[in-house]
Amino acid sequence: MKVITTRELKQDLETLLGQEVCLQGWIRNHRKQKNMGFIDFYDGTCFKNPQVVYDDSIGNFSEISALHVGSAITVTGTVVPSYRDPSTPEVKALSITLEGDSPEDYPLQPKRHSVEFLRSIAYLRPRTRLFQAVFRVRSVAAMAIHPHYQDRGYLYVHTPLITANDAEGAGNTFTVTTLPKGSTAPGTEDFFGRDTSLAVTGQLEGETFAMAFSRIYTFGPTFRAENSNTKTHASEFWMIEPEIAFCDIQQLMDIEEDFLKAVVQTVLDKCPDELEFLDKFSGGGLVEKLQALATAKCARISHHEAMTILREVKDRFEFEPKYGGDTAKEHEKYLTEEYFHGPVFIYDWPKDIKAFYMYQNDDGETVAGVDLLVPGSGELMGGPQREHRLDLLCRRMDELHISKEQMDWYVNLRRFGGCVHSGFGMGFERLIMYLTGVENIRDVIPYPRTPGECEF
Amino acid sequence: MKVITTRELKQDLETLLGQEVCLQGWIRNHRKQKNMGFIDFYDGTCFKNPQVVYDDSIGNFSEISALHVGSAITVTGTVVPSYRDPSTPEVKALSITLEGDSPEDYPLQPKRHSVEFLRSIAYLRPRTRLFQAVFRVRSVAAMAIHPHYQDRGYLYVHTPLITANDAEGAGNTFTVTTLPKGSTAPGTEDFFGRDTSLAVTGQLEGETFAMAFSRIYTFGPTFRAENSNTKTHASEFWMIEPEIAFCDIQQLMDIEEDFLKAVVQTVLDKCPDELEFLDKFSGGGLVEKLQALATAKCARISHHEAMTILREVKDRFEFEPKYGGDTAKEHEKYLTEEYFHGPVFIYDWPKDIKAFYMYQNDDGETVAGVDLLVPGSGELMGGPQREHRLDLLCRRMDELHISKEQMDWYVNLRRFGGCVHSGFGMGFERLIMYLTGVENIRDVIPYPRTPGECEF
Repeated sequence: MKVITTRELKQDLETLLGQEVCLQGWIRNHRKQKNMGFIDFYDGTCFKNPQVVYDDSIGNFSEISALHVGSAITVTGTVVPSYRDPSTPEVKALSITLEGDSPEDYPLQPKRHSVEFLRSIAYLRPRTRLFQAVFRVRSVAAMAIHPHYQDRGYLYVHTPLITANDAEGAGNTFTVTTLPKGSTAPGTEDFFGRDTSLAVTGQLEGETFAMAFSRIYTFGPTFRAENSNTKTHASEFWMIEPEIAFCDIQQLMDIEEDFLKAVVQTVLDKCPDELEFLDKFSGGGLVEKLQALATAKCARISHHEAMTILREVKDRFEFEPKYGGDTAKEHEKYLTEEYFHGPVFIYDWPKDIKAFYMYQNDDGETVAGVDLLVPGSGELMGGPQREHRLDLLCRRMDELHISKEQMDWYVNLRRFGGCVHSGFGMGFERLIMYLTGVENIRDVIPYPRTPGECEF
Repeated sequence: MKVITTRELKQDLETLLGQEVCLQGWIRNHRKQKNMGFIDFYDGTCFKNPQVVYDDSIGNFSEISALHVGSAITVTGTVVPSYRDPSTPEVKALSITLEGDSPEDYPLQPKRHSVEFLRSIAYLRPRTRLFQAVFRVRSVAAMAIHPHYQDRGYLYVHTPLITANDAEGAGNTFTVTTLPKGSTAPGTEDFFGRDTSLAVTGQLEGETFAMAFSRIYTFGPTFRAENSNTKTHASEFWMIEPEIAFCDIQQLMDIEEDFLKAVVQTVLDKCPDELEFLDKFSGGGLVEKLQALATAKCARISHHEAMTILREVKDRFEFEPKYGGDTAKEHEKYLTEEYFHGPVFIYDWPKDIKAFYMYQNDDGETVAGVDLLVPGSGELMGGPQREHRLDLLCRRMDELHISKEQMDWYVNLRRFGGCVHSGFGMGFERLIMYLTGVENIRDVIPYPRTPGECEF
């Protein structure tokens, strides 16, 4: 008999009711009575799983009754309606075969384990309901990026991860080398004939492709050797970096907003069962928050306006909001959760706290950068209109002592048919935290890398 | 007036004929006559580009006549039919505005440049027709992976790139460190508290997710510090690694074949203009080859059978085909191009030339590995049914001196509800070379990294 997945079972439920099916998967829980048994069965393809029921009319009743949690099994049986939940059937077993045993002391027992414990067995945690939900949402959100952009003519670009550039200025990068430990040989003797590190962004290379294909996006890993042990920092994470030619900062905000809403809507559509679980897990309000985001209009204010709003209530903050200064977490929280009750774009930032490649506004003080803040997570996206004017870019690079020679190809984009263009970056894990309500970045990455941690 | 892309122009051509439109992009070629001019215009969103025609009724005729190749421009004009190609209109310009100039000595002139020269200006080559075709195919193929697998219930998993494992045995990896050059400090003092390197595969972590979600795939970068300067090796490349629980080697071949055909068919459907160009560029036969692959049944033979076939004509080979030995490029070429005239799976390989994790067949001599060979490119996919039997896996690891302690989590998958499972890997760049007819891996990666080369 052809084996089907629980996903197929759910999709074709009407046809399959009363039919005989064959399933393969694992035992999450096993409750035994004298003449019957109930197996919480899962194969990971569908979040809501059928219960497998057997009784002593089955051949090897005593063997089946002894099956451990965690074991792999093959089940053949008849699909019958469930009284608990009409959308999820039961399977009345005709035969159950053990495929792979699991010991009595299998680490995942049918009880609530702490996320800290589960991190210590990260290779087993995808089997739990929490991580089945989180990683399915991650997968669906990752997929959603591609049709959204490709339907709009964007090109998916794989920017390099090993690089000789250091886009964000010195430091915070991992060295990549094949020289033996302790070697003091110069970069010219290393594998690539120069010193190399892991990329902190694909933006610069992305710009070169936007100047050829008009609209591009990247989606790939990025690295930061930052020694900060927080809930929101990882040393290896995924980023999405779209870059658009002939696009100014106002159009950029439209593109960011459309994109975010499309991903949120896709996850709402494709993962209702996962979100229902995550909503409960995270204390409620998750689905409501996502539904609101998918339809709400994001507010748009300048950094100056933001500071005016914040300064009206400045006594409540630990850090005083200042014109010309950066925003603190508490400021972002106030703006999104109390003042606007929703996402807000803040644009035109003081130039001294932003990167060299941002478009310099006529006021001489601000640059056309924009951050999107969302309730609960703070900054979700960030990016500017780029400085496309050769003379202004060069002057800014000189002021900040950035080598124009090393980055001549980047500068040259402004010589060879340059144009107004803009781009932004979104940390994918930040998005997943936002979509799942999970509060620690370590719990939305399969195998997180953080200072001192590189297990599995 | 709203700006549209050339892609939108092509899609809505019937509606837009006779209408006024606004386009933004670049000048690829510019031919001038006394009272008229012709601009080969492109914005990179569509492979076949409209010609922009202007005459001296336009306001600034002499300025426009002087526009350089490579310049960025905004064009408004009327869409008119083209006599050269009914599917690609002309735009009769009403106004042309310079957005960004380009110098007389712009490196990309309207003539055929060698791929070697273009590699030296890799940041400009995406603007050429060859690389517009190659990178669009790459983007479309990358996208095609996701719906193919997600529609079948697979989970997309991001496996880690910084790793403390060394799955393929010692060597060939890049060290990742934050220790200063020359430091002899032990790994315990490094960023992650241990020695780390860049991953050569995501397979082992992929297996842990297959044991939770049944069907998973990875798609991400992979690294090899191999000092080999060939047309088919890069130090950084992308891999797709599906892994499927409750799947044996025969089912694995079905999955590989379905996947390859789906990607090929998607590219045939979505990139006809690009493929037409690449067909001519690569000397003809490309589209025919891809169409044949999309419908043909892949042959399936054991390694033993392959050797029997090869040994019948052994005198024509430089390397003698041997039972128990590896295949050479010339053998693969004979099998795919002369004997089967199409793709062929070779399964059940001698165990001594394959990795420790492959399922050990009953004959004691072979393992259930399988390679897919295709005409023109040789090996495209490779992977085995995994050894899921704890005792046999441990014995093989011992024989090959692979530490079971360091990989206890991998071994444990066989203790905790293990099952028959299989997976394969496909080098994405090999696929793109196959799809485009491009012969050097450096020309299918935006910024290739090879020994001694890490530009841009």
